[in-house]
Order: sequence, then C-alpha cells, then structure tokens
Amino acid sequence: MASAENFDRAALEQLITKRFFYAPSFQIYGGVAGLYDFGPSGCALFNNIVSVWRNHFVLEEEMLEVDTSIMTTYDVLKTSGHVDKFSDYMCKDLKNGEIFRADHVIEAVLEARLQGDKEARSAKAGKTTEEIAADTAADAANKVDKKKKKKKGVVVAVELADDVRQSYEECLAQIDNFDGDELTAIMKKFEIRSPESGNELSDPKAFNLMFESLIGPTGQLKGFLRPETAQGQFLNFKKLLEFNNDKMPFASAQVGRSFRNEISPRSGLLRVREFTMAEIEHYVDPDNKDHPRFNEVKDIVLTILAKDVQLSGKTTTSQITVGEAVAKKIIDNETLGYFIARIHLFLAKIGIKNDRLRFRQHMDNEMAHYAADCWDAEIKTSYGWIECVGCADRSAYDLTVHSKRTGEKLIVREQLAEPRTVELWQVEINKKTFGPKYKKEAKAVEEALLALSDDQYATLAQELESNGVGSVQVNGAAVEVGKENVTVKKGTVTEHVREYTPSVIEPSFGIGRILYSLLEHSWWVREDDEARNVLSFPTIVAPFKCCLLPLSGNEQFVPFVRKFSRELRAAGISLRTDDSKASIGRRYARNDELGIPFAITIDFDTVQDGTVTLRQRDSTEQVRDSFENILKILKESN
Amino acid sequence: MASAENFDRAALEQLITKRFFYAPSFQIYGGVAGLYDFGPSGCALFNNIVSVWRNHFVLEEEMLEVDTSIMTTYDVLKTSGHVDKFSDYMCKDLKNGEIFRADHVIEAVLEARLQGDKEARSAKAGKTTEEIAADTAADAANKVDKKKKKKKGVVVAVELADDVRQSYEECLAQIDNFDGDELTAIMKKFEIRSPESGNELSDPKAFNLMFESLIGPTGQLKGFLRPETAQGQFLNFKKLLEFNNDKMPFASAQVGRSFRNEISPRSGLLRVREFTMAEIEHYVDPDNKDHPRFNEVKDIVLTILAKDVQLSGKTTTSQITVGEAVAKKIIDNETLGYFIARIHLFLAKIGIKNDRLRFRQHMDNEMAHYAADCWDAEIKTSYGWIECVGCADRSAYDLTVHSKRTGEKLIVREQLAEPRTVELWQVEINKKTFGPKYKKEAKAVEEALLALSDDQYATLAQELESNGVGSVQVNGAAVEVGKENVTVKKGTVTEHVREYTPSVIEPSFGIGRILYSLLEHSWWVREDDEARNVLSFPTIVAPFKCCLLPLSGNEQFVPFVRKFSRELRAAGISLRTDDSKASIGRRYARNDELGIPFAITIDFDTVQDGTVTLRQRDSTEQVRDSFENILKILKESN
Repeated sequence: MASAENFDRAALEQLITKRFFYAPSFQIYGGVAGLYDFGPSGCALFNNIVSVWRNHFVLEEEMLEVDTSIMTTYDVLKTSGHVDKFSDYMCKDLKNGEIFRADHVIEAVLEARLQGDKEARSAKAGKTTEEIAADTAADAANKVDKKKKKKKGVVVAVELADDVRQSYEECLAQIDNFDGDELTAIMKKFEIRSPESGNELSDPKAFNLMFESLIGPTGQLKGFLRPETAQGQFLNFKKLLEFNNDKMPFASAQVGRSFRNEISPRSGLLRVREFTMAEIEHYVDPDNKDHPRFNEVKDIVLTILAKDVQLSGKTTTSQITVGEAVAKKIIDNETLGYFIARIHLFLAKIGIKNDRLRFRQHMDNEMAHYAADCWDAEIKTSYGWIECVGCADRSAYDLTVHSKRTGEKLIVREQLAEPRTVELWQVEINKKTFGPKYKKEAKAVEEALLALSDDQYATLAQELESNGVGSVQVNGAAVEVGKENVTVKKGTVTEHVREYTPSVIEPSFGIGRILYSLLEHSWWVREDDEARNVLSFPTIVAPFKCCLLPLSGNEQFVPFVRKFSRELRAAGISLRTDDSKASIGRRYARNDELGIPFAITIDFDTVQDGTVTLRQRDSTEQVRDSFENILKILKESN
Repeated sequence: MASAENFDRAALEQLITKRFFYAPSFQIYGGVAGLYDFGPSGCALFNNIVSVWRNHFVLEEEMLEVDTSIMTTYDVLKTSGHVDKFSDYMCKDLKNGEIFRADHVIEAVLEARLQGDKEARSAKAGKTTEEIAADTAADAANKVDKKKKKKKGVVVAVELADDVRQSYEECLAQIDNFDGDELTAIMKKFEIRSPESGNELSDPKAFNLMFESLIGPTGQLKGFLRPETAQGQFLNFKKLLEFNNDKMPFASAQVGRSFRNEISPRSGLLRVREFTMAEIEHYVDPDNKDHPRFNEVKDIVLTILAKDVQLSGKTTTSQITVGEAVAKKIIDNETLGYFIARIHLFLAKIGIKNDRLRFRQHMDNEMAHYAADCWDAEIKTSYGWIECVGCADRSAYDLTVHSKRTGEKLIVREQLAEPRTVELWQVEINKKTFGPKYKKEAKAVEEALLALSDDQYATLAQELESNGVGSVQVNGAAVEVGKENVTVKKGTVTEHVREYTPSVIEPSFGIGRILYSLLEHSWWVREDDEARNVLSFPTIVAPFKCCLLPLSGNEQFVPFVRKFSRELRAAGISLRTDDSKASIGRRYARNDELGIPFAITIDFDTVQDGTVTLRQRDSTEQVRDSFENILKILKESN
C-alpha cells in the first residue's frame, strides 16, 4: 500500500476520475466548488459502506432508524443554536473581491512565514534543499492537522525574531478557537494580506454556513437545509421513546444528506457543500452511563491522543484498551467507550488501516460548552489527520432547549423500584383570597410562585415569616404576596416515578470523508508489472464483488455469460460483466482499478467442460474449477 | 384486505401515527405542510422497498447507479426548462390572503356545484340521502382521479341548466392542461370565488415550484434544490457511456431526495415538498428500440387504459399481454414495453395488489412536446387512482439541449459493420483569398459556412452558380461570399462510424407514494378478534422480519434472548425484541400493527428443552419446534 508520506495524490486522483468514483457536479457546465457526483463505482462503494454501517450499528443494536426532512424551519435551528453560531468568518480582498476564510488565510500566511524562517535558518546552517524538505515533511506528519490543506502562502526565506516566531506558533495552535474580534485583532497585529495578490483584506465578517430558502408561496416561512441530521432525531424523541416501549437506554440513527455552504471549499471530498452523514443519538441515564455490552469490547486496543498530552504540546499517541481508558477516566464513561470501540471495529471492517487511525480527545476549549467529553476518530491521509467520525457526549443540551422552547416534555419517566421520600418546598394558595386579590393576574402569579428555585423559596418563606409579606417576579415586575394568600414551607413527598432528561452520546460519521480515506488506504501500484493501479477494498465494500469476462466476443460464450450471471445474482453477488473487446490482461487491469476482488473468465474450456478461471485481485493467483465450485468460494468470501 | 371503496382512512392514519410509520416533521414546533419524518417502522419499510428496487432493476440489469448533487445550478435547470416551465398557478383570497392552487380551486368549486345539481335533481326524483351518497361514491370510483383530494367546496343543492352542467364537466375533464391565461378566463367565466370564505380571488399567477438558494458567500451564484434526479444523470452521460466501455444500450439509475415547493400540499405522503425518487434513464438507439430480454416478459398480462379509450371519454381498462400491446403498437416499442412489464413485476413483488393497479397512457396533450409515448403505473387508493410510477420515452430531448448549451458532444459513436456511402454537401475554402478578405472575421465566416442546413447549402450553391456571389448569416448579419473564395457542392463520403444522440426511456418511481399505497393495500382488520389491525406486508419488505418475545421479565429467559437474537442477526433476519411487560397477546397485536410476519416466543419450555413457538402474522397459526428448525423456516422465507 502507498504510505501517507510522499503520497502521489495526483496519481490517485487521476484513477478516481478515470474509473468514475466521483467527479465535480455539472462538470460540462464548468462545475461548482464543493459539489461532487458519485459515479457507478463510487456510488456502489458508498452504498456498501452505508450498508455495513447499518448492519454493524443499527441492526446489531436494534437502533431506531429514522429518515427526517432536510428542509428545516427557522425556529428549530434558532433553538438549536445554528442560526446564531453556525458560522465561519470570511474576509474579502479589497481590490479584486476574492473571498477567503479568515482562519485559513491567517494559517496560510503565518505558516508561509514560518517556513521562510526555517529555510533562512537552514541556509545559514548550510543544509541542502532536500534536507529542508525532509524536515518539513516530518513536521507535517507529526502535526495535529484537522483541516484540509488551505491555499499555500508564498514562501520567502526571511528569518524571524524568536519572539515573533513563538507568537506565530501560539496563534496557529489555537486557530480554531478565535471569534470574529480576535481574528480581526490578529489580522491587524500580524499584518495579514491576501496570500494570492498581496492586497489588503477586509475585516473578518461572520458568514452563516446554512443554505437558506423559503417554504411555500407566501415568502414568509424561512427554512434552511439541515447542517446535520441530529436535530430531526431529537425532535422525535418522545415518539421514539414510546416506540421503544419507554425502555432506556436506546438509540436512534439516521443516514442522510446534510449541507454546509462552505466559504471556499477545497480538498476534494474532505470539505464539501453537500454530504452524507450517518448519525447515532444514544439516549442514556445521566446518573448511570454504564453499558450492558461494555464487556464485549473492553479488551480492544485503541490508539489514542488524550487531551492532557495535547495540552503539554505533544502529539504522541499511546495504545490502551478501552477497559483501561474508562477505568482510568481517560474516556469519561462506559457508553462513550463502548461506541469508540465499536467505531474502531467498523472502520477496521471496511478497510481503514489501524496504523493510520487514532482517537483524539477534544481539549476543553474545543468542545461545545454543554459537551461532557468528545473524541474524534481521525484517519491519516495525504491531507494530514482527518476527522472522520466524532463521538461526543452532548449531555442533555439538545432535548432541554427544544423542550424549553416548545413546552413539550422531552423526558424519561422511570418507575422507581421502591418509592422514595424527598424534601421539597411546597406552596399552598388560599383560593378564597388569591383570586379576588390578583384578578386577571392570578394565574400568572400562581405560575411564578410554582416555578421558583430552592433559594428563592427559602428567601420568600423567610420574608413571609418575618414581615408577613414577600415579593415574586411576574413578567419582569415585582408583585407583592402576603401570608394571608400564600403559605410556603418545606414538606416531604413520596415519589414513585423519577423524571429525567437523558444524556445523549452521539457518534457522527462523515461517509464521504471515510470513503476518500479508504481510497487512499486501499490504493497501491503493482510494481512487478507495468505500474498498474490496484484498489484493495475488502470484499464486503468493494463496488462489485465479481467480474465476468468472456474471453472474446465469440457467440459460444453468450449462454454461459447469461447462466453464470443469473446464478451469481441469485447468490447475492454483485456483478460487472465486461465483454468489451479489450484483451483479458487489459480487462484484469481495469478490474484492479475498480477494486473488484474476483474475476471469472469464460473460455473455450468452459464450453467443453463447464470449468472457469477464478482470478484473485490482490495476489493475481488463478484457479480453475467447475463454475459450481467457484460459486461456492465466492459465496463464502462474500 | 380493506377495499378502496368505503375505506376507513382515518383508522389507517391513526395506526400510521400510533406505530410511527411517519408523522409531520417538526411536530413539536407545530409542523409544516408537506414535510414528513419516517419513524423506525416507516424508515425500515422504506429502505426495504428501495433495496428490492435496487435488486430488481439495478443489479438485475447491471445499471450504472450514480449519486449526484441535490443543489443544482441555475444554468442546468434553465437549459432543462425547469426555470421557465416548472410552475403551478396560484391565486390569493383578496380579503384574507389565503393562497390556493388555481386548478384545485376551480375543481373544488365546479365539483361542489355539480354535486349540488345532482342532489337537487335526486331530491326532485325522490331519492334518499343514502342513495345519493352511494351514487357519488360509485362516480368517484370510476373517475380518472390523478390528483389527491383538494379542499371541498360547500355543496348547496341548486339545479344547473343542462348546458352549464356540460360546460363544467368539459372544463373538469381538461383541468390539467390549462395555462395561466386560460385559468384566468375560466375563473372569470364561472365566477370562481374562494370555497372557504366566498371572497374574491386574484388572477392566477405562475409560481415556480423549485426551492431557491444561493451557493457560496458572494450571493451571486443561484442554485435550486433539484426537482428530479434525472438531470444529474444526463449531465454525466459521457462519463457513463465510457464507463460502460461505449456499449449500447445501457441504463443509469439514481435513488435520491428531490424537492417541490408545493403551493398548498395536502393528502399526506401523496403530495409533499420533499420526497425520494428512484429514476432510471435507459439510453437506446432511436432507430432500434427492440430489447434483448423482451422475450422474458412478453407473456405478462397488464391492465391498461390506452389513450384512445380515454379520448372516447371512457375509463374502461382492458387486459392484454405486453407482447400483444407492443405488436399492436398500443405500447410504442419493445424497450418501453419491457420496462412497463418490469415495473408491474416490481410492484407485485413488494405487495401492491394487481386488481388495484393499472397502466394509463398519457394523452397527446398531456405529454411534454418531445415525449414519444408515456405510461403511468397508477395505484388505486382511497384518494382515487394515484400516479406512482411514470414510464416515458423522452426521445433525445435532454441530451440534445444540454449538448447544445455546453458544446459538449453527448452522442454515441457506433462503429459500422460495413462502411457506408452518404451524399453530403461539402464546402471548400480557398485559403489564399479567404483569410485576407475576411481578416479577423475569417474564422466566424468559416464556421457559419460549415454549419448550414441542407436547404441553405442548396440555396447558396445556386446563388454562387448563377450570380457568382451568395450570402451567409454571421452573428445575425449577412456576409457576402464569392465563388473565388468558396466552393459549395455535393459529394459522396464514406462513413465508418455512425454518430447519434440516444433516446431515453425513463421509468421514474415516487417511493413515498408507493409506500403509502402499500400501507392501504396491506391493511385489514381481524374481525374475529377485538377489531385488531394487521398490516400484511410481504416478508421481503416488512419493516422487521421477526419479533422476539420472552414470555416475561424472568431472568432465566435473558440468555436465550441474547443467543437467539445473535443467531437471527447472523442469518440476516432483521429483528425487534419486545421484552416489555405487556401480555403476549398485546405484544402479538403490536407486531401485527407493525406488519412483522413472524414472532418467536421464549417460555419455560424453552429453558427446559430449547424449543420455541413460532407465530405467523396473517394466519395467527403457531408451531412449536427447536430454535434451530424455526431458524431454518425463517431463512427460507426471507
């Protein structure tokens, strides 16, 4: 296999285009950045990855798969926080109007300056250009590179003062965490200009990444294309819990298209405007995040990069079993650990190489404020380490905000094994005097009295006790209440049911990114031959399992092609018949490029005795046997 | 099974909601018309229908499945005609602002008046209200009702003059074919007002049904959500033909989300704003639309409603084999006939009842101007006959317009078995004098000369012959050419290759409509019991194949649940474990409502001797056997 260093990406991209795994959408119209079409090979590979995903997660754990609307109303995404916060910052070349992502342009410029510094210092020390290049590659390989490559700045060999170099490096280490004001300040401080034209840039401006549209003919109902499939799952929580006969824990799942209107997408499938996600929302008791099947995965060894290591400025990974990671509290809880292990197994199953996979923990300042713990499965490609799966403990955030906004209770009611006694503040209202006193306001005052916090009850009880009157806030104004109307006291209550908002553990998969990584990990070049490409996909995801090749266009072969293809299909083996006029050798090479694991050749012996040749893609080994026996081999390997 | 007449739709809808097949999206936010979420049962049913579709069409015929972008640029949809023509007409209540689809509001009002007329006449004739209702139901059942029910007008028993009644009926028969001006005239002529408020309505105005958005941060690149998946396939024609080693005929296919911003969607899943289509584009030689596998389907009997029958004002269907229909030219060609037969087989396989399925041919005024022949698979539901699959011969229209607009050749080059000689007009340019004479314009003049039609060549040759000069249009202006610069004459050319733009046969499936029809066709009520719902889906599409039921929460059953569920999953049998506390009878009833064909019950005998009970959904028959034998039965029925 080709390794990540010195990876010949151009050659792979040529193969991807030639065998139509994918290509820019609307290419005959000039194409649009960030939109891609999957061709027959890419689409089949894609569908197979999704199918393995569905078997591995949904069927295995009886998850409740849903399929919700892409078009989403303003209210939903306002509540979830996407309307206000789902933005990147952009700035514009003040002369030619070119638009950049602010963080990317800062990165490009500072990295170019640091590179120039390195070259200047190396030149002083007498290193050759090759040595410098090798240093740089080694650096890049060690870097926590969650982004795809951005536009390169122009490298000029100028040495920097030590403190300047250090401030650049500090800035780059935190580049993901800056808000608009901070980005503006950085651009001013470091005099950042367009890396393309050298022109001045505008101040960074927030650009919301959701595609916007209008629903219906009135023009008054605003909608967005969903940026993730998760919200559709949260909104159905109540129905799903009921479908699950109110049993906890359980998970919902969804595979579907999502959209992000990227400012300037590059890097092929890694940063696109339209993509397929596969997301799981596993609902769990916040007081007990143990997992019943944790035992099945506890001995799996993970490669991890924990947050404390990153905080110390290092990127050294370590090997640890899931069981140990959870026991040592490196991974927060069993459920999170269980899913990280299951993600590991899934990626291995579809062909991601273990030595190019790591689980990186988010640092505290990277996570959303509500998240309890978050790990990314990062896959190493020629673009660096790419986040392909996120696995976050989102706590109760989403259900809480939607519940608050809609008034719909999104909770679990748990029958307690034994009733329990709790001390609670209780409010008694004297109906006789309360209504006449507050008239139309009576209901609002009563609601306000019932919704106080423990501290507020304590204060109110104290006021009533000592002064005979106290006050309560009703719609922003203080309203007086007297002890003749209201009694506030602590009492004990017996509860038979416990109500809670579950926590959500969310494994979230970017299928396109996984597919691209798999292409890189599967690709190699047969060197003993005339440099032929091979894509060694595991059989389970290969676009087609078998290729059927009649030796030539001879009429005698036709009935065999028909019969064998019928029997292969009946056995559930996906098939590509290649009866073109190319030589068998050329057709084998074509199969290798499509990653088809097996080829069956029909020749004149087949006509005589019913035997065929089976060729294995990776080894190129061939065996000859009756078609029936070959079919048996294929069935077993499927 | 419940029949289409007197169908209790409210009861089915209750079941659909209760078992979460689907529900309005964002329901806790109040929902939005025309947007639905599929719950676990609906999503699994949906995925299974798509999976059968993929096996039946894509794998069976080695179609080239693609997955193209939903977000589509303005240029593409301008060329395809959607920007200009993909509209419905809407009109507004001038007082309260309510918006109606113009054709729907005319239908509602005229049908209400006709109904009022019928009631008035019946009352005169002394019929009872029940008899009138029965007449109306029979009428409705016979009608060609391609639309979902629209808002009902208020029925007032007023008798109409015979000529008025006739003009209403004529108008209703053609309601699909009117343009904006005609709709306006009709609304004036028949004094159509809002059926809700009685207020005046605005003149009908075209409303484009595509959701619009902006791509990228500049705000200058307009995009639409695709209204069909077809265009993405046409744009990739060249790459697909190459992938197919230039072999013809071949088909591409795509399953994916499409969008239509309906003016006022109603009728549940039948008219929605976001939906999944499965479309096939089969490319075929326009001079030879025979199909190599036609023989396999020729004896299949179809129920058809041909255009000549409809033209004579009737809706009487007839039974005919595909072979005979093509031989008699009722169906235009073998390829179209082949796909109609394959659609018939597909719908039968997933459970659509044959006596509620017909193929209706489009009348000439219904078809797009470029279409050669078009048939809809219509399924009878409580909403009337619903178009669920279209099967059109789109001729070479799409490839031709995209090719013309982009300059990309979207053609097939066929190596001729024997070279052929053709007479062609030939243009010879005298390079010596041509360049100096036309200078900068030389290239444009040459191109214009090479692009004339046969008639234009004949005229030009005639002019040069008689006057020594002729003229040619270059960018809208006439340019003089003389015989000293140009010779135009007829000559023979030997061709080794034939170039042609293929015709496209397009079977196009609305998966949501098929799914809803299947729910109606599968639903019945067990009358010998306490009126229990059953959904008798064929095993191949049932949301879950098997339900696993431990008799109670007894700890002894747990290892058996674990073991059996593992083995069922390993055998590819999708599973729902129902270990809730409900009685076995109630859990069986729940399974019936989910359409699960088999239930396995684990009881104390299981603990003793490893036997289980298998219950069949439709018959409720039970057998007891070892788990291993039961598993064998399930495997065979899968």
